Amino acid sequence: MPNRNDVVNFAAGPSTLPTVVLEKAAQGLLNYNGLGMGVAEISHRSKEFKAVSEKTVSDFKTLMDVPDTHEVLLMQGGGMGAFSTVVLNLLAAWKLQNPESNAKTTLDYIVTGSWSNKAAGEAKRLTQGTDVSVNVALDARNHSQDGKSFSNIPPANEWKYSENPAFVYYCDNETVNGVEFDKSFPYDSLPPNTNLVADVSSNILSRKIDVSKHAVVYGGAQKNAGIAGLTLVIVRKDLLVDTDAAFNLGGIPQVPHLCDYKRHADNESMYNTPPMFAIYVSGLTFEHILNHGGVDEYSKRSDRKSSKLYQVIDNSNGLYKPKVSPESRSRMNVVFTLPDEETEKRYLNEADKLGLKNLKGHRSVGGIRASLYNGITEEDADKLIEMMKSFK
Amino acid sequence: MPNRNDVVNFAAGPSTLPTVVLEKAAQGLLNYNGLGMGVAEISHRSKEFKAVSEKTVSDFKTLMDVPDTHEVLLMQGGGMGAFSTVVLNLLAAWKLQNPESNAKTTLDYIVTGSWSNKAAGEAKRLTQGTDVSVNVALDARNHSQDGKSFSNIPPANEWKYSENPAFVYYCDNETVNGVEFDKSFPYDSLPPNTNLVADVSSNILSRKIDVSKHAVVYGGAQKNAGIAGLTLVIVRKDLLVDTDAAFNLGGIPQVPHLCDYKRHADNESMYNTPPMFAIYVSGLTFEHILNHGGVDEYSKRSDRKSSKLYQVIDNSNGLYKPKVSPESRSRMNVVFTLPDEETEKRYLNEADKLGLKNLKGHRSVGGIRASLYNGITEEDADKLIEMMKSFK
Repeated sequence: MPNRNDVVNFAAGPSTLPTVVLEKAAQGLLNYNGLGMGVAEISHRSKEFKAVSEKTVSDFKTLMDVPDTHEVLLMQGGGMGAFSTVVLNLLAAWKLQNPESNAKTTLDYIVTGSWSNKAAGEAKRLTQGTDVSVNVALDARNHSQDGKSFSNIPPANEWKYSENPAFVYYCDNETVNGVEFDKSFPYDSLPPNTNLVADVSSNILSRKIDVSKHAVVYGGAQKNAGIAGLTLVIVRKDLLVDTDAAFNLGGIPQVPHLCDYKRHADNESMYNTPPMFAIYVSGLTFEHILNHGGVDEYSKRSDRKSSKLYQVIDNSNGLYKPKVSPESRSRMNVVFTLPDEETEKRYLNEADKLGLKNLKGHRSVGGIRASLYNGITEEDADKLIEMMKSFK
Repeated sequence: MPNRNDVVNFAAGPSTLPTVVLEKAAQGLLNYNGLGMGVAEISHRSKEFKAVSEKTVSDFKTLMDVPDTHEVLLMQGGGMGAFSTVVLNLLAAWKLQNPESNAKTTLDYIVTGSWSNKAAGEAKRLTQGTDVSVNVALDARNHSQDGKSFSNIPPANEWKYSENPAFVYYCDNETVNGVEFDKSFPYDSLPPNTNLVADVSSNILSRKIDVSKHAVVYGGAQKNAGIAGLTLVIVRKDLLVDTDAAFNLGGIPQVPHLCDYKRHADNESMYNTPPMFAIYVSGLTFEHILNHGGVDEYSKRSDRKSSKLYQVIDNSNGLYKPKVSPESRSRMNVVFTLPDEETEKRYLNEADKLGLKNLKGHRSVGGIRASLYNGITEEDADKLIEMMKSFK
């Protein structure tokens, strides 16, 4: 039976975490800080757990350079949950600023892959029958070579922002399609004072992001930041609004309590019982990243891991075929195909024998996907690279 | 530094779990089933995790005697989240059966403590501006001796159901107030074909409940059934409806995706990434309960633990003053006061010295609260009982 050292787990998320983080988490599950009780067995309002929660938030703020203008919320529901909560809360904020009964607005979505596409779909659902419409400012499929794949992000001058959107939404890294914004979102393309929303679920803590340019930055924890069940939300403080007052003005959807940013903020994310163990694991992960050079260091590692892997792909004389244009290639999810299914199978078998696991592409697009999250060391990535060099 | 054997954790939730469950969970966190990867690091769609999830659901169905008419969903958001989701989904089902534009309905709440009171409050919020109103069929405070405490559940003939409510809601055990329905909700009091909704967050798996009499039974996992971050929802299959179609008929609120029962059911609770580790811990907890005699056995243990403790209280010549009338006393949360704050402090100190922890009452009501969840053995409870006998 393999132990952790025999295996490299290239899963697209949930994904691998540092062994030392999990060892400490396992210890805390049974006996936290010598209390004789586990970290998930004590009250979330106890001073011991409050200390866990506060340190988790504070380390996260440090790692993300969160300015004083923004608040960090620990929520549930993952990225998919945030598709809904972002719309509900930002529309409430918009309504309070535009209380006239005939006020209308749009939500602009930059669709660069499966996840931003789903987010736009949920925004359309939630705004049915309201005074709000959704504008897909970019559907990158229309700019691809085959007219139907998410394989590049065209320059912002080809996008179509609406006049005065309540927000502009993008997904910084598309896990399924292996598409990532080159260095950052093109902030300069935005109309002045636009609320920008980023889904960073799959590249959080792998490079710097300028939080101050955003209204909301959120991510599910289960890739670079912990285990599934926790959603990290950074929100500009002026957007923490009384959603009841907003709803009473009409024209927008109601906000269920569990989706309400202000309610979470006012209660330091303890309005309801938070996912305590997931918070603890994220806290340990943040500490680990801080102790190993912070986001700057992980950013460099990500660059090195992914560029080495893309090099092998590009120098394979067509054996490995990349799916994404060079300027939009993800450092987190490297996607490519092999000449035929037979060879793909052989590749996966070969990898499997060497303990290189979970390399199959997403069921919706097929092919191969190697995810190089923060939990994958450079040595881990090198094992795959060596295997790919020798595979014929 | 104390280890787990030195301490008994009487926390009201999150609360203590069996050590063997946590030991197995800790092992699985690092290396699940000899994969060389942890249970929270693999894809939620992998065959390995699907097996975990399916066994968790299947053991839960066995423990709860869930009939074929009902489905089990693994959700997030806790009891507080369910306050919203129950309203949203059951109103969608109601609307599809009552599509006329002038259809109106009510939601009946049986308010017997802090949690059902909060649930009623959220129902009022969510139905503002819709064709639905909330009827508090019982506010137990009005039936208490002091006119303001939740300290008993008056008989159902004193409640005021509305004519034809979309559902009747109750909380089977009120954690803060230590109030529990005697044996079960009075099913016979209900008008025929009423959808009954039960919050069993804090007494789930501690006694049999007749699921077939309910439209929805739900509970946060973090008391008797696992750790925080997972909500167990049992819903009758005819209530899994197309909420978009319902919303389009008008008069009801929209349902965000993360709250949508049918979407979770159609995707076997994997529409979004589920809280995998919390599911794993619940699965281990269910297995543990099944291997130790099932709900019948835990029900007997609960009866024995709580009646012994109430006996000490009742025979203390007024040293311990119970807060709840005998017929509505909770088997899970035993609440009482001591003559004055000074004595309460002394009591808590004494208990603390013996490793008896987390006995302080909820901040909103004060006093003492000893929670006797499934994780508390009879020997654990006896330690407290002995201490209380000798305390003067």
